Amino acid sequence: MKQYYALINKLTTKSGKRDEAITLILESSKPFQNNASCLISLVYKDTKDPNVIWVEDVWTNKEDHMTALAQPELRPFIEKTIPLLESMPEQHEVELAGGKGL
Amino acid sequence: MKQYYALINKLTTKSGKRDEAITLILESSKPFQNNASCLISLVYKDTKDPNVIWVEDVWTNKEDHMTALAQPELRPFIEKTIPLLESMPEQHEVELAGGKGL
Repeated sequence: MKQYYALINKLTTKSGKRDEAITLILESSKPFQNNASCLISLVYKDTKDPNVIWVEDVWTNKEDHMTALAQPELRPFIEKTIPLLESMPEQHEVELAGGKGL
Repeated sequence: MKQYYALINKLTTKSGKRDEAITLILESSKPFQNNASCLISLVYKDTKDPNVIWVEDVWTNKEDHMTALAQPELRPFIEKTIPLLESMPEQHEVELAGGKGL
């Protein structure tokens, strides 16, 4: 089994702030589209909880993910998103066991 | 934005039963490999909690996912997996907002 660096993140926004946060997250992750190390970076709305966002990231390795997140152009998006959150993001580091889609 | 049927599932197994549960889940989902409606069905181990499994599913629509799960050949796998779980799976139905990988 080829190994990747994968994360499942659960973000909870302040009431009514989810759409604004999603716009910022999608905008900030645009550079990932041209980053060959980013295999999956999907942003989802929870259908039951109107304040919950799920973000799934699969990268070829942790270092490239860290480098991508450390780019200075991301900083303003992160600074605008943090005040929209109710709490710290729940970050689950995960290891691929198998399946379809990668 | 094209819409899909997507789920993020968190399963917690009884202590020491995760690998056995993952083997059963991967075995049971083999028919999805040849199912064009299944775009993603990835099984992950949580790296922090040794009893947690995450399963991410993205299907073109809910009906095809339901039909795939209702196939009689899946039944024995489900019946073997349930006793390995500590609690009912946490199932989060999610709606794609955007990103990379689909």
